[in-house]
Order: sequence, then structure tokens, then C-alpha cells
Amino acid sequence: MSGGAGISALDAGRALSEEVMPGLEAALADRYDRYLPGFSEWQIATVYGGPYARDGVDFKTRQIATVAALTAMGQQTRPQLKIHVKAALDAGWSAREVSEIILQMSLYGGFPAAINALNAAIEVFEEAAP
Amino acid sequence: MSGGAGISALDAGRALSEEVMPGLEAALADRYDRYLPGFSEWQIATVYGGPYARDGVDFKTRQIATVAALTAMGQQTRPQLKIHVKAALDAGWSAREVSEIILQMSLYGGFPAAINALNAAIEVFEEAAP
Amino acid sequence: MSGGAGISALDAGRALSEEVMPGLEAALADRYDRYLPGFSEWQIATVYGGPYARDGVDFKTRQIATVAALTAMGQQTRPQLKIHVKAALDAGWSAREVSEIILQMSLYGGFPAAINALNAAIEVFEEAAP
Amino acid sequence: MSGGAGISALDAGRALSEEVMPGLEAALADRYDRYLPGFSEWQIATVYGGPYARDGVDFKTRQIATVAALTAMGQQTRPQLKIHVKAALDAGWSAREVSEIILQMSLYGGFPAAINALNAAIEVFEEAAP
Amino acid sequence: MSGGAGISALDAGRALSEEVMPGLEAALADRYDRYLPGFSEWQIATVYGGPYARDGVDFKTRQIATVAALTAMGQQTRPQLKIHVKAALDAGWSAREVSEIILQMSLYGGFPAAINALNAAIEVFEEAAP
Amino acid sequence: MSGGAGISALDAGRALSEEVMPGLEAALADRYDRYLPGFSEWQIATVYGGPYARDGVDFKTRQIATVAALTAMGQQTRPQLKIHVKAALDAGWSAREVSEIILQMSLYGGFPAAINALNAAIEVFEEAAP
Repeated sequence: MSGGAGISALDAGRALSEEVMPGLEAALADRYDRYLPGFSEWQIATVYGGPYARDGVDFKTRQIATVAALTAMGQQTRPQLKIHVKAALDAGWSAREVSEIILQMSLYGGFPAAINALNAAIEVFEEAAP
Repeated sequence: MSGGAGISALDAGRALSEEVMPGLEAALADRYDRYLPGFSEWQIATVYGGPYARDGVDFKTRQIATVAALTAMGQQTRPQLKIHVKAALDAGWSAREVSEIILQMSLYGGFPAAINALNAAIEVFEEAAP
Repeated sequence: MSGGAGISALDAGRALSEEVMPGLEAALADRYDRYLPGFSEWQIATVYGGPYARDGVDFKTRQIATVAALTAMGQQTRPQLKIHVKAALDAGWSAREVSEIILQMSLYGGFPAAINALNAAIEVFEEAAP
Repeated sequence: MSGGAGISALDAGRALSEEVMPGLEAALADRYDRYLPGFSEWQIATVYGGPYARDGVDFKTRQIATVAALTAMGQQTRPQLKIHVKAALDAGWSAREVSEIILQMSLYGGFPAAINALNAAIEVFEEAAP
Repeated sequence: MSGGAGISALDAGRALSEEVMPGLEAALADRYDRYLPGFSEWQIATVYGGPYARDGVDFKTRQIATVAALTAMGQQTRPQLKIHVKAALDAGWSAREVSEIILQMSLYGGFPAAINALNAAIEVFEEAAP
Repeated sequence: MSGGAGISALDAGRALSEEVMPGLEAALADRYDRYLPGFSEWQIATVYGGPYARDGVDFKTRQIATVAALTAMGQQTRPQLKIHVKAALDAGWSAREVSEIILQMSLYGGFPAAINALNAAIEVFEEAAP
């Protein structure tokens, strides 16, 4: 899905995940592959070699969209939300911009979901710039 | 919340909603205010005079974030999703970019949610450029 | 669970469902029991002979709580929402009160969920008092 | 939205939030306003000066409706659920009544959501009357 | 609903729950019945004397279906998910099979929900076979 | 992820999707690829060449798990639910078994979600065996 000539989704996913989240594939492999053979490669190929590796919209926009979605869903995805808040900062969004989008999600996922997401984001902001 | 000197949230919301969705307040008033006195003003002040009117992140980004969220939530919000797909196009996103973000949401809200959202978006694309 | 001396959940459920939704058990039986033997009796015993038949909080409060919940969940439960809006009116809530609670849910389930629920409720209001 | 002559949503929200949750605005300001300028005022105006300050249905009913909704949604809103269980007790509902509505939500949000909400509520009950 | 000649739902539920989760009714009674008179009996009759006690599909299939559902819903049901992962193992599914179904749910409930469920399941696997 | 020697996920997905849903890839390509270049191949590789093509648990179990999940999620996935009910019947589950699992989901996704899913399933049953 990377659209390139002959670059596999796995190769594209590895390149991208190593750039934005170094060590992810190894960590996934270490933790999950004994229960699910091949999981780490599939996750990398499907997620990082999938939508995130596609042309068509820039990577920075993709990161803020994911923050918006995880906030609005309001589920037990705090660990993933923190990962994507960090990725959004790394992609060039400011803490203010990330906070604004989370606030906006109060209109769609409700105030508790937005507040909880903001709390998670603040932990990331404070780790990034203590 | 509009941040300006003395501009009320209602005024800010009216200015913005008339720009991006002309006639919205009147339509809300006509339909809902007899059941909920003051609803239309409150909705305009809270939504369009609220997060959407804030500084801190640009309006274009806010629109794609809402498309992402409504897609990932996967709920019965097809009418609202179509409104925000239209608003995203009006804000300068291409049909391709909107589609990409919807596709990406398959990773968070699942494939059925993404496909259903894409179907709704395509209706908007085809109305916009038949 | 009906709390009475020897009244079974099924009997309690039948008494209540016939009062608030006459013909429900027969309709359920006619439609579902061929696929799920005993379903209609179980549904009546579990739902109408369950929480709704309990002492501890009044039936009127139970109905508005269900309207609140179905609104906030924002899912494809429009038919059930309409049934419970009707039941809330029958239990003594006004259209205004029902509308207010639905509006309040915009804070928890988001604006699209509240608007969609309000649209469903209005259909019930207009059927009840055309 | 407070409906009064000239009372702003912010003033109405401040009056109500100070009554039912003293110190809330200051706590919100202290924690969030540096990331989101004006957030605390907006939250108070929108939530406590919004639906909760409206006429049309009594405040006590609004509190039980929120408990119902947060329970049925089944999300990571335990902190907010506890706040509203406390507010429901303060508004005059008994622990039994609150428990009954939570139990009823097992029919809509499922048993795990109801049990988890009941566990959160019991913590509040036991703090309120140890 | 147990379909047997004269066996009540409560008796059927007690038999099944004592088999698969010994002590559950007593634990429920001890914790919840003071807030909700009769709750423990109702829960046992409704859940374990309800769908789980029915003929029509085997108990083993029911357990994997519940794991699938709790995973895809992605909510704060970690305690219940762990209970049903354990029950699925007890019903004859392997850790691999349970993991596979959880992985599959990434297509419907999203990757974060699947990963979080997998983490919960692994805790169960490791307690079961340390 | 197909685990075979050199069979790509796309080839595995094509083989499986053509078997269980002939013409799917062509239909996806025809409808979506103009908006999302390469989408149809990616969907086939990710979904049908992904979890559904994996060893580790049988295909029949995978289908009932998906029916369980889509039911419990209670979202606007009626088209996808019908597709997977059909696939579950094709995989060897009876209408009764599918109905039983849907009924069971009332305990997790609530009664409205289960009833709505049952209604969708009945349409499939009646098309399959009129």
C-alpha cells in the first residue's frame, strides 16, 4: 500500500515505525509473537506500512486526526493516546494545538472523554518539556 | 471564549456559522426552539462560538479532526459526518485527503465504521463535483 | 426480583409490560421465538420483570434514565429510544422535560447524538399531540 | 441560556458550580488554563451555565440522568461518574435509588458497565456514610 | 429460560455459575445486595441462568463470543474480560485461539482495543501457566 | 501474515475473499479506488489476508466471533453484520446458533443492540431459506 515500486508494506512500515517509534517492532515481537506468531510484522505492515505510510495526506495531519479519534472514542486507550500525543508533538504540533483539538472533541465524545484525554496529554507535555 | 475584546460567544458563533453554514441558526430555531427555548442560540454559542471560534489551531485542522472523530465513533451520526465532510472540503481539504483520514480510522474505529463513513463522504464528494 | 411474595419475574414482567406496552410479549413471540425458543418470555421476565419491576426507585425516574442512556450511547437504537420517549411521556414527563434531558446529554454523548435523539423524540411528540 | 434577564451563562454557571462543587472553576483554571486559555470559564459557562442551569426539568432529575448516561456509556469516565454520584446524593437521591438506576443500565450498557459503575458508586457511598 | 422441566432460571444459573465460577453468587451477595436487595440472585438467574444456560449453541462457543465482544467494545471492562478469558481457557480454548480472536477484533474495535485486550489476556495466560 | 512459504497477504486474501465473498475485491475497487488508490488491494490483504487467513483458530469460529462483536458494538454496522451473518451460515453455523450468540450479546451490548442485530440477522435467514 506504500505505492512505491516494489517496496513492501512491511518494509515501508519498518522504515516509518523506526523513525517515529524506534524499537517498536522489537518490543511487539518480544511481548506478543509467542502468543500470536507473526503479529509484530503484521502490526508494523498494517499500521505503519498501511495508512500512515500512504501518500495523499501529510503525516502531521494523520497524527492529529488520531489524537482526535482516540479522544472522542473515550475508551480505555490511554496508553495509545499518549503515544499519539507524543507523535503529534514530534510531527510539529504544539501542545496548545493538541490541547485545542482535544477540547474540541468535548462536542463529539463529551466532556468527560475530553477531560480525561487532556489529563493524559498533559502527562506527555510535562514529560516532553518538564 | 472567542478571546476577542468583548465579542460574545454568541456573536462569534453567529459570525462563524453564517460563514460556513448559512442559515443554520434559523433552521435550528425553527425546528427545536419550541421544544427547547433558547436552544438555537445556545448551540451556536457553544459549538460555533466555542471550540471552532478559538485561536490556537486553525479552522481547517479542526474540520479534519471532526471528520476523524465522527468516523471513528462509528455511530448514527451520518448526517453530521456529511456536514463536516462538506465543511472540510470548503476549508480546503481535497476529497483525497478526507478519504485518507477516513481510511486511517479503520485502525481505530474498525473497518465497518471506516467503510460506512467513506460511503457517506462519497455522497458529499459527488454532490460537490458531480 | 419483583420483591413480592411469590410473584415470579415473568408474572411481574407480564403485568408491567401489558400496562405500559400492551401486546409486546405477543409481538416478541410472533417475531423471535421461532429463532430463539422462549425468547419472548425471557425478555419480558428480564427487562419488565427485572429492573423496571423493582422497588427502590419510581418507574417514572426509570423511564427518563433510559432516555438519557439511549441518547448518550448514540447508537443505532432509534426504535428503542422512541419507545422509551413514549413511555416517559406516559409516565408523566412532559415533552419539554424529555427534551431537556436529551439536550443535557450533548455534554456526555456529544452534540450529534443529542440532535439525532431530539429528532427521534420530536417524532414521538408529534404523534402524541399532532 | 439561563433564561434570566441579563444573567450571563458564565455567571449562572459560576453560581451553580460553586453551590454544587465548590472550588471547581479554580481547580480547572489551575490545571488546564495554561494549556487552553479560557478553558475554565468556558467549561463553567457551557456545562454549569448550560443545561444544568436551565429551567424545564429539575436539577435532581438532571443528576440521575447523568449517572444513567455515564454508566451506560461504559467508558473511562470513572472520575466523572463518581462526581455525579456524589452530586446525585447531594441532590436528594438515596444510595438505593442511585444503585437502582445503575442496575437498570445493565439492560442498555451491559452487565460489565453496570457492575463497574456500581463499584465506583459504592466508593462514593462509603465515603459519604462510612 | 433453561428449557428444562421445571428448573428455574435461578437454579440453572446457580448450577452453572458454581461450576464455572465457584463462589460468585456469594461474592456478589456480600458486596452488592445491601445496596440492591436481591441483586445477586437476579444476576445469577439472568446471566448464568439466562443465555449461558440455554441450549442452541455450545457453552464453549459462548465463551469465545464474549471474549470477542468485550474486546471489540474496547471499554473499561478489563476485569470482566479477564474473567471470560479464564472461562474460555477452562472451556477448552487454547491461549493461541483466544489470542487469535482478540487479534481479529483489531478489524472491528481497532488496534488499541485489541492490544489492550491482549495485554489483559496475557495476564490470565501467565497466571494459568506460569 | 498467511504463514505460508512465500504466499503474500494479498494472494492469501484474494483466495479467501473470492471463496467466501466472490467479487468483493472488484466491487471495492470499482467503488473506492478512485478516491483511495490501492484501497481494494489493501482491504483484501489486511482483512481477508490478515486475521481471517491465519492459522490458530478455525474460520468458522472467526465468523461467529465477528457476529458477536458487531452485535455488541451496537453501531451503524448493519450492512457488515448482515455480511458476517451470511458468512457464519456459510461456515456451518445454524440460524439458531447465530441467534443464540446475538441474544447472549444483550448481556454485554444491551437489549436494543441485540434486538436490532437479531432483526438484521432474520433478514439474512429469510433470504437464505425463504
